[in-house]
Amino acid sequence: MTDFKAPVSDINFLVNDVFKFEQHYKTFPAYEEATPDLVDAIVEECAKFCENELAPLNHSGDKEGCSFDNGEVTTPSGFKDAYQQYIEAGWQGLAHPTEYGGQGLPVSLGLIKSELVGTANWSFGMYPGLSLGAMNTILEHGSDEQKNIYMPKLTEGTWSGTMCLTEAQCGTDLGQIRTKAEPNDDGSYSITGSKIFISAGEHDLTENIIHIVLARLPNAPKGTRGISLFIVPKFLINEDNSIGERNPVVCGSIEDKMGIKASATAVLNFDGAKGYLIGPENKGLECMFTFMNTARIGTAIQGVAASELGYQTSLAYAKDRMSMRSLSGKKAPDQIADPIIHHPDVRRMLLTQKAIVEGGRAMTYYAAKIADEMDQASCPEQKEAADNKLGFLTPILKAFLTELGNESASHAIQVFGGHGYIKEWGLEQNARDVRISSLYEGTTGIQALDLVGRKILLDRAQLFKAFSIEILAFCKDHSMISGNPQKKRMHKFIWQLSKEVANWQRHTVSLMLKARKDRDFVGSCSVDYLMYSGYIFMAYMWAMMAQSANENLTAGKGDKNFNKAKVRTAEFYFDRIFPRVKTLTNTMMSDANSLMKIEIDQF
Amino acid sequence: MTDFKAPVSDINFLVNDVFKFEQHYKTFPAYEEATPDLVDAIVEECAKFCENELAPLNHSGDKEGCSFDNGEVTTPSGFKDAYQQYIEAGWQGLAHPTEYGGQGLPVSLGLIKSELVGTANWSFGMYPGLSLGAMNTILEHGSDEQKNIYMPKLTEGTWSGTMCLTEAQCGTDLGQIRTKAEPNDDGSYSITGSKIFISAGEHDLTENIIHIVLARLPNAPKGTRGISLFIVPKFLINEDNSIGERNPVVCGSIEDKMGIKASATAVLNFDGAKGYLIGPENKGLECMFTFMNTARIGTAIQGVAASELGYQTSLAYAKDRMSMRSLSGKKAPDQIADPIIHHPDVRRMLLTQKAIVEGGRAMTYYAAKIADEMDQASCPEQKEAADNKLGFLTPILKAFLTELGNESASHAIQVFGGHGYIKEWGLEQNARDVRISSLYEGTTGIQALDLVGRKILLDRAQLFKAFSIEILAFCKDHSMISGNPQKKRMHKFIWQLSKEVANWQRHTVSLMLKARKDRDFVGSCSVDYLMYSGYIFMAYMWAMMAQSANENLTAGKGDKNFNKAKVRTAEFYFDRIFPRVKTLTNTMMSDANSLMKIEIDQF
Repeated sequence: MTDFKAPVSDINFLVNDVFKFEQHYKTFPAYEEATPDLVDAIVEECAKFCENELAPLNHSGDKEGCSFDNGEVTTPSGFKDAYQQYIEAGWQGLAHPTEYGGQGLPVSLGLIKSELVGTANWSFGMYPGLSLGAMNTILEHGSDEQKNIYMPKLTEGTWSGTMCLTEAQCGTDLGQIRTKAEPNDDGSYSITGSKIFISAGEHDLTENIIHIVLARLPNAPKGTRGISLFIVPKFLINEDNSIGERNPVVCGSIEDKMGIKASATAVLNFDGAKGYLIGPENKGLECMFTFMNTARIGTAIQGVAASELGYQTSLAYAKDRMSMRSLSGKKAPDQIADPIIHHPDVRRMLLTQKAIVEGGRAMTYYAAKIADEMDQASCPEQKEAADNKLGFLTPILKAFLTELGNESASHAIQVFGGHGYIKEWGLEQNARDVRISSLYEGTTGIQALDLVGRKILLDRAQLFKAFSIEILAFCKDHSMISGNPQKKRMHKFIWQLSKEVANWQRHTVSLMLKARKDRDFVGSCSVDYLMYSGYIFMAYMWAMMAQSANENLTAGKGDKNFNKAKVRTAEFYFDRIFPRVKTLTNTMMSDANSLMKIEIDQF
Repeated sequence: MTDFKAPVSDINFLVNDVFKFEQHYKTFPAYEEATPDLVDAIVEECAKFCENELAPLNHSGDKEGCSFDNGEVTTPSGFKDAYQQYIEAGWQGLAHPTEYGGQGLPVSLGLIKSELVGTANWSFGMYPGLSLGAMNTILEHGSDEQKNIYMPKLTEGTWSGTMCLTEAQCGTDLGQIRTKAEPNDDGSYSITGSKIFISAGEHDLTENIIHIVLARLPNAPKGTRGISLFIVPKFLINEDNSIGERNPVVCGSIEDKMGIKASATAVLNFDGAKGYLIGPENKGLECMFTFMNTARIGTAIQGVAASELGYQTSLAYAKDRMSMRSLSGKKAPDQIADPIIHHPDVRRMLLTQKAIVEGGRAMTYYAAKIADEMDQASCPEQKEAADNKLGFLTPILKAFLTELGNESASHAIQVFGGHGYIKEWGLEQNARDVRISSLYEGTTGIQALDLVGRKILLDRAQLFKAFSIEILAFCKDHSMISGNPQKKRMHKFIWQLSKEVANWQRHTVSLMLKARKDRDFVGSCSVDYLMYSGYIFMAYMWAMMAQSANENLTAGKGDKNFNKAKVRTAEFYFDRIFPRVKTLTNTMMSDANSLMKIEIDQF
């Protein structure tokens, strides 16, 4: 297996050259401390920790997996120690409030940390990652008392948290939830039911686990409008904040699954466990959704992480492995054959990965800036605006990047030929690990319905319009019309991008009209429309990156090869990946009949 | 896990209605016995065996895997017994000569058997499957003495065979092979070297294993022109044909791999093992290639098999699992939610699988008929013609169907949502198992180079021309111009197909011209061109199937729902899958520069 190297230059290029985080952070008083030097130091430090401590446990963690014995889960060797180091270095509270012991640094920096941790070892990252979900829920909806009880320990990382939504009969359709919450005399509730697929639901890394649980109050309305949110700690907390008695929430088993084997996926049985209402009664789902966007960007990152890991490994192999001669003449005449990186089709597979990982990373950093804006909004209107924009981009990020992450991981295997199928290289693990990403946190189909149903149709495409206009404005700024001869280099990108954004606008209007006449069309076009939107978003990022790299080249700034590589990868993207829109625009506008006319007994 | 049901109606539809095997078999005297009744009985019997004996071992075989101990390999529980039943029923010799104890039935029927066996349990099918490779080599290139020694036992199945090509430093580039063959005084050879990735290289199913080994004679020319082929039995054979002493070819280990875990992939160490030259000296590679086409169709079938298995399982789940309400109104008002098969995007995923499995199966049966023609050719010219046609189609079948098999297996998981990631449903195994198919027997990239380099450029597109003209002739026969009003139903298919075949011709000419100027273009266009060709081939098959189904509907023949389903799936294919050619025609003609210009240190 190749040693993982954190992609620090790529991160710095986005942070400094493309998205100019320095200026961005300066607009928020609370981010004052996030100076370029500090950001640099944090990225470096995190990179080192991930390379040295987490990456070496990735393959062994898969091999060993978690073990389950009588309600207790043991994580693979080395995880406990690595987690201890992780919390001692303060990584868990990096982007959380200082009043609870966090470092109060930008949300975007927290996402960069998650990316690095997740690339080195996605299974490990699930434990602190799920905890962030619980922390955000408590921060957003908890009472001051609840925050004071739970936030310090969660921020410190000595406790962790989970999100308990899914039950055996429902994952997407949470209205079917059956777990009950009966009020106790002391104001607490008695939670009874069974939850499945609870990531980090039970493990040996922390002294307590704080479950956030969806359940129904007695006489709650049916469906999604009768679900409330509860805090259910594994161990109850005494009045002096010390750990108290064991709460009857017990892990019944852990799942035997395709990948992320070092991440425990628990069945949790609540047998009258004591819980505390968080947020208003029957508003549990709304509360959950308030930070769903950030959680989903967290999952989108898995696509980027898997692409990065696969790319690094397959690139090293392609430089090393010798097979056949280059079609255009010997490249390594002294050797028995040429390194396979000289073969055009191997390059196609490598560049596809490179385009996906770097384009995908840019998409998440673009979104991370908006997450900062939301976090630091100075008024509710600003917050809502940022939330809405993020809400429009989130389903695209989540579904598109995880689908492409799967594709990318498969290319990495393919570069290795038969060797890619063997466990020791780690690439088959990478492909197995990333396969979950388009399933959990809302499948690709669900993201697509969210995009088309809520973010386009319900919104009457206002958010779409704003985003597409933003891209056109970028195109205008960098088009040749602006008179700057240096823009010539950008011409081919700008031309293709602006043309396709115009198509995107046209198709979106047609889609809205067609959806009015046929509700099934909403579902039949949705995934193709989402992927189509994703390729445009990624094209926008590649045009931005090409622009920054060209600027650097003109100014003689930075590593010349690095900047040239960015421009060439942008060329590759526009030549070989972006044309996927040609098929998608065709299939997505195709009539729903070809899906709906066939009878169930004809399948 | 859903119980596997052999797709007998689909097979019969192809055998009887689309490809009319009865008439086809009648043209060959040796296939006289293959009457419709016999074919029917064999398919039924094979289906039963696969459903009852092989399918139940598929999941347990994956879980248990093969075990290795001191040179010996133990297959998973039940495999030995199932293999015994397999050979006792005479399945191994189904399509092999009666003079060696086979049943002498058509090659195409042998491929249908391989499909059924492989769909029920691909790992199991690898053992007899590899043996077929060894049998065909000996039949084609062995001396009469060699045939008499090895063929009866191999045909019976009490011995099995392997193909030993790959070494650690080379798989594709066999010119790098280092295994040596030193002549002994008795006319045999002493084989020394190490082979890897030997499927069925060691196991406990048969009393002997006959290895076909690529090795170099002393002073052999360098590269591929200095490779010879040897028979190396695990146990030497005494003069009275009884099993003799152990030959020093020893299994050093078996691979720990992503899938097909019940199929042992051996490292074989030859330590002066006794071997017998088969075929002429230094012509080993040519000998191997004589039946490569059939072997590669065997691998193409893995794509179909995985698609069938995934489709069956996900279809059953989609009818059963209830989640959300249909966008166009409640479909199961008495239930808490609608079965997910009512959701357009779930239908899209199911129909994509259905289109791939049924279209892919048709492609392999189309090729199987040509394999019969080759097998039964009455003169060398006929044989060469069939071999050439098969040679043109083989890389398309192998690469296209295995790539689509991977896609299909992933859709099956996706239909299940998070549950698809859990081992118990068997879908993650299906995805892991099929992943090998685009890697072994020549990767997708290698198939694509074979297609563009050998079958288009070297051949000056003569085979291409013949095949594309055949499709156009079909289009003409079924176009509205022919005056038959019944043809109207076929119009939309014929129109799209003939238009795209014309494009295919045009693009192929452009490709040939472009390849002359830039050798790297051959590699840069190859995979996209292969996939493009695959979608056209599959469209041809869907048009043929729609035509047969329409005929049946008009004649009131067969199950109405079945025939309607064929027409609707054809509609789906042409609406939603075939438009993939739009992207491919764009990317494949794109300049090689976008791949070649980037420097190695810029990756």
